[in-house]
Amino acid sequence: MPVFATKKDIDYWADLNARELWMTGMRPGDILMNCYGYGLATGGFGFHYGAMAMDAMAIPMGSDARQYDRMIDFIVDFGVTAMCRTPSVGLYVGGKARERGVDFRETKLKIGLFGAEPWPWETRMKLEELFNITAYDEFGMTEFLGPGMTCECETRDGMHAWADAFLVECINPDTGEWVEEGKDGELVWTWLTADGTAMIRYRSRDLSRLWWEERCACGRTHPKIAAIKGRSDDAVSIRGLIVFPSQVEAALVKFPETGANFRIIVDRRNDLDTFDLKVEVKDASVLSDSARNQALSREMAEAVKTVTGNSPKVELVPADSLPRASGGESKTASARVEDRRKK
Amino acid sequence: MPVFATKKDIDYWADLNARELWMTGMRPGDILMNCYGYGLATGGFGFHYGAMAMDAMAIPMGSDARQYDRMIDFIVDFGVTAMCRTPSVGLYVGGKARERGVDFRETKLKIGLFGAEPWPWETRMKLEELFNITAYDEFGMTEFLGPGMTCECETRDGMHAWADAFLVECINPDTGEWVEEGKDGELVWTWLTADGTAMIRYRSRDLSRLWWEERCACGRTHPKIAAIKGRSDDAVSIRGLIVFPSQVEAALVKFPETGANFRIIVDRRNDLDTFDLKVEVKDASVLSDSARNQALSREMAEAVKTVTGNSPKVELVPADSLPRASGGESKTASARVEDRRKK
Repeated sequence: MPVFATKKDIDYWADLNARELWMTGMRPGDILMNCYGYGLATGGFGFHYGAMAMDAMAIPMGSDARQYDRMIDFIVDFGVTAMCRTPSVGLYVGGKARERGVDFRETKLKIGLFGAEPWPWETRMKLEELFNITAYDEFGMTEFLGPGMTCECETRDGMHAWADAFLVECINPDTGEWVEEGKDGELVWTWLTADGTAMIRYRSRDLSRLWWEERCACGRTHPKIAAIKGRSDDAVSIRGLIVFPSQVEAALVKFPETGANFRIIVDRRNDLDTFDLKVEVKDASVLSDSARNQALSREMAEAVKTVTGNSPKVELVPADSLPRASGGESKTASARVEDRRKK
Repeated sequence: MPVFATKKDIDYWADLNARELWMTGMRPGDILMNCYGYGLATGGFGFHYGAMAMDAMAIPMGSDARQYDRMIDFIVDFGVTAMCRTPSVGLYVGGKARERGVDFRETKLKIGLFGAEPWPWETRMKLEELFNITAYDEFGMTEFLGPGMTCECETRDGMHAWADAFLVECINPDTGEWVEEGKDGELVWTWLTADGTAMIRYRSRDLSRLWWEERCACGRTHPKIAAIKGRSDDAVSIRGLIVFPSQVEAALVKFPETGANFRIIVDRRNDLDTFDLKVEVKDASVLSDSARNQALSREMAEAVKTVTGNSPKVELVPADSLPRASGGESKTASARVEDRRKK
């Protein structure tokens, strides 16, 4: 879905992100290394605008984990005080820094904001130890511009959702009824200040909990949500981007070589998400012709990247070798996704 | 060299870029598809801020040419009126659109800004025909934030250099003396409005011409420069980024397997720059061990990308198989660069 932001939306968004950065302890003059991607996926822009709105310096590093040496150098050389990125890339870069013998206690780094994928408390402790930081969880959705929706305060027990900008509700995904405060359900969001795109009672498919009556120890009265624990549909979050099996199907059906039966296999290696895609091909001769096999795999990977933002490692397999939906599942059946990551 | 921009610098930069966009015919309400990268290389931000400053809409597409389908879809679906990108990526995407049968006369696209690499007049005509646009040349340097320094007006005979922000001089690179107006020389830039980083009489190494006395037919009195025709050192521009052999050397000397003799080979295939890097290895056994060979090649490619922003295709070759500087060249000898692109 295209989301249009007017100048008013961007200004408001910058303020909400500045508020998050302030809440985690950043102040004017701090230096934020922003390791989210800049582009159609808006993670990078949110914190960038937020830092500028609060007179902090933003370093637009981008999200390419292979650039870990540069990321480490910048923290050391430029006195970076805060960073934001996905927890998995954080673990990877932190591990590389340790191998290099970098001691972050000798740097000015003190704050880390992590989001865009689920991460357990053990990961938080590991990140804090690797980087000598306090780590905060934040959450936002591209459909509402991205970051700047919710973030932890110093209490770090749930994330405050900005009540002046968003109305958040929690429902039973099967009945659509409200669930009791603090109970599991699907979050539903309304964008109260939207100027460009109307988002009214948007079903996020994100499973979480919501509470608002209990006052937070920090004194803030904005309602709180818990970390996202899953989805109520068959989409899967890979490297911080949501991938729908239906998107992959749409990319693959353009290839006459396949009947578009495929399997998405997500795993984590060296703390980074991997995205393998097995695709059935009708004509067995493609499999034994290594030049055709490679060319077709590459074209398919690029087609999938165009629609999902994520580039898979494609493996072509014989026809009828993959499991199929048995009929008991929904149309975009979960037989198409195998998530091997430890949650 | 790190360049720091203060809030004042960013605001001024946004205005200079807005002025460029206006000069090429863009107006408030226009939609600019920005196909420069966003990040430490600042091409993307300049035009993005410029579009926002003039109340045009910016689509942060990014520079990945493999996303050509998405680029074409956006022009068609969202009524894009202007785009900015490198000419080589423009040719590539335009060719792909033609293969797909897209007729840009049926879209709202009318303006193209191209820069970051040298391009002949034939390329301009090809781009105009492929996209049904008027094509403009623009030029800027990352050392001065990036785009927003110079751009063509409708006369399209040289680029106006904003005299309120930059003092531009043209010198003989050997003697340092001013050359006559309109004669070939090296451009030297002073940043008159800089707030964060001082740039005073900065020798760009860019070879061009400068004239200011002759009034432009458009009525503007800002001095003009001609398209950059080369460099006075041994650096080479690949995919819009300047690569110094000395940077490549610095990345390679960290590997004990090589004596850091190497050769950069730049070419153009399917209208896109290619970057091949041949590296001598001391130990011949690495060459025959395909697993070690591949792993080492990949590590070297990533190390080079970290310092240059460009990822080469690395080929390991036996010791003493590459040409070396004969002693007649400068230290960073041109024996290390082979540029096969047609200029």
